[in-house]
Amino acid sequence: MKKPLKSYLLAPGPTPVPPQALLAMAQPIVHHRSPQFKPILEEVKEDLQYVFQTKNDVLILASTGTGGMEGAVTNTLSSGDKAIVVRAGKFGERWAEICEAYGVEPINIDIEWGRCVTPEQIKAALEKHPEAKAVFIQAHETSTGVKFPLKEIGEIVKDKEGTILVVDAISAMGAMEIKTDAWHLDVVVAGSQKALMLPPGLAFVSLSEKAWRFVERSNLPKYYFNFAKERKSLAKNQTAFTAAVSLIIGLRETLRQIKEIGLENIIAHNQRLSEAVKAAVKAMGLKIFTKEGLSEVVTAVEAPHGIDAQEITKIMREDYGITIAGGQAQLKGKIFRISHMGYVDEHEIIMVIAALERTLIKLRYNLTPGVGLKVAQEILLKDK
Amino acid sequence: MKKPLKSYLLAPGPTPVPPQALLAMAQPIVHHRSPQFKPILEEVKEDLQYVFQTKNDVLILASTGTGGMEGAVTNTLSSGDKAIVVRAGKFGERWAEICEAYGVEPINIDIEWGRCVTPEQIKAALEKHPEAKAVFIQAHETSTGVKFPLKEIGEIVKDKEGTILVVDAISAMGAMEIKTDAWHLDVVVAGSQKALMLPPGLAFVSLSEKAWRFVERSNLPKYYFNFAKERKSLAKNQTAFTAAVSLIIGLRETLRQIKEIGLENIIAHNQRLSEAVKAAVKAMGLKIFTKEGLSEVVTAVEAPHGIDAQEITKIMREDYGITIAGGQAQLKGKIFRISHMGYVDEHEIIMVIAALERTLIKLRYNLTPGVGLKVAQEILLKDK
Repeated sequence: MKKPLKSYLLAPGPTPVPPQALLAMAQPIVHHRSPQFKPILEEVKEDLQYVFQTKNDVLILASTGTGGMEGAVTNTLSSGDKAIVVRAGKFGERWAEICEAYGVEPINIDIEWGRCVTPEQIKAALEKHPEAKAVFIQAHETSTGVKFPLKEIGEIVKDKEGTILVVDAISAMGAMEIKTDAWHLDVVVAGSQKALMLPPGLAFVSLSEKAWRFVERSNLPKYYFNFAKERKSLAKNQTAFTAAVSLIIGLRETLRQIKEIGLENIIAHNQRLSEAVKAAVKAMGLKIFTKEGLSEVVTAVEAPHGIDAQEITKIMREDYGITIAGGQAQLKGKIFRISHMGYVDEHEIIMVIAALERTLIKLRYNLTPGVGLKVAQEILLKDK
Repeated sequence: MKKPLKSYLLAPGPTPVPPQALLAMAQPIVHHRSPQFKPILEEVKEDLQYVFQTKNDVLILASTGTGGMEGAVTNTLSSGDKAIVVRAGKFGERWAEICEAYGVEPINIDIEWGRCVTPEQIKAALEKHPEAKAVFIQAHETSTGVKFPLKEIGEIVKDKEGTILVVDAISAMGAMEIKTDAWHLDVVVAGSQKALMLPPGLAFVSLSEKAWRFVERSNLPKYYFNFAKERKSLAKNQTAFTAAVSLIIGLRETLRQIKEIGLENIIAHNQRLSEAVKAAVKAMGLKIFTKEGLSEVVTAVEAPHGIDAQEITKIMREDYGITIAGGQAQLKGKIFRISHMGYVDEHEIIMVIAALERTLIKLRYNLTPGVGLKVAQEILLKDK
């Protein structure tokens, strides 16, 4: 039967954009060198520091997060450098791929997908390779739902004068606790289309003073992603190249909303939604794929025996209008992932659990309707 | 705790507007006498006939539904006329009030709120008052959730040359089955902000040939709501006064969507949502207020003993961002009403049931979380 079908986004990015930001972005274009634009850039510059919890500059690049990752490599390292890379999923692999593309030798710490790297493993790798110029890691591995112990790793790297800690926080920034300065995170990369609630198209990079010293010495080829140039422009409330003005105007709106609600409240909100989803899928007899270090930003769930996870995501999308994510690379067909960050509320969490129950029943999974919902309701009732 | 709060509208109007219609209405204004506007009016004119299931003209007025109701009185009756009015709720009372304001004498059939008028009562009233020029009724009484037997009443009135049947279908048109021509409904009034999925601001009125003969003889004072003048303008794809151009451009979009899904599918969709809500609230131990003739457009529910319905609607709105309706007039504080028409999907129905469960538990109503949801899930699983 044909019926009205609305669209819901519960994949780990792009995430829904608040209507106020959509309206802000629909305004006529202003010029990126105009006097109207400078105060906008000045405002978002400060608000990004609030979200990043840093006193350092946060560069704004017109690219997606991967551009920020590439820049983090090409602006801090030199050809022939070695770097420790935590490879615990799809995005850990990306760090290694970028290093290789630019002649940096990755020393990979390979972690079974779904498991977490320990601070001891980082320490051991640094002892074995004291010449490593950087440690590349994610705040959490979006592909597996594992959150890494950034604070502890920061404690290890901070005293090594010759090594920086470079964090891909693309799907984590604004969603989970990331204390850039207090945790000694030298380079932190974020993206617009995740917890910052914007369309894709902006990357953000913060660099510590230690990291800026690396920038001075870096000899890797770069042109568009030139952090020194961006830093100089940012001091004049500009960007080095054309600014993505509409996205930045939208960013001003979403950052205002984040400040208005308060970062700590948003993080608590995400944790609450994450708890509800994780408890609900367990009550439904499903297994969380993530073995340790459960991220509160995304829940990775194993498809039940005999059911392809792609069938689940297909029914969710086609019959229910809900986009959740499947598994990536070797996890394709094996897991599906539900995000609970950004502009997502508790009602959408109830909705996705309800639709997941109905989807699994359609796929002949043995389930009493409502068992997941009951548990989710109980958790949401703990609301202060 | 502060948290992101989205807004959901599940009151019986205004209802949510599809984003495609919002975008259409955001376009630059066109002039209402311009060549660009005429094909738009021509298209909506035809599509309104599809929704009304009529071959008659459907007039488009720049007013809310009540303006259409006033016009239905002032354009068909004359001073001193008598008219039978079914008063079974707030909107039945409105017909009587308009009649009185214009010197028409209402012969009220007073029905206990929550109960339905029978065709026999109409028949008896007409036998007692054969001079009555009109029978005024609702398609369903939004204030009580009662659906009236329009088809049967149409059979009774159709053979009375001196009496027309005038139907307020403001919150019913496009949501439930209303066969204007086949059921001999002489005047039918609808509004934009209900199942037609637009902001408030447009009323629609269809008149049968029999009704147009009444218009010729009517002597009540009128200027803005002049149906004869509107009919003449409509023949030229215009409106008599300035057309509410943006709303009509939005209407073109929502009518296209209705045609694309199919009126019969939309009605079946609403019935399914209504069934889920009614079963869920019963499973929660609540009582449906409506005693007979259950409308599929709105569910009226009695607040549990000791709980003011206004507390329920307040928590739903303030804590959960969900607007449902309270009771009107003597039902204030006693009932609340959930709408399931227009741009509302099954996920929002799950969401409203979940939020209602949590609201009632917050108000110390004895309820096991999930009991309503379980039953709603079972009904939604019957999806073809």
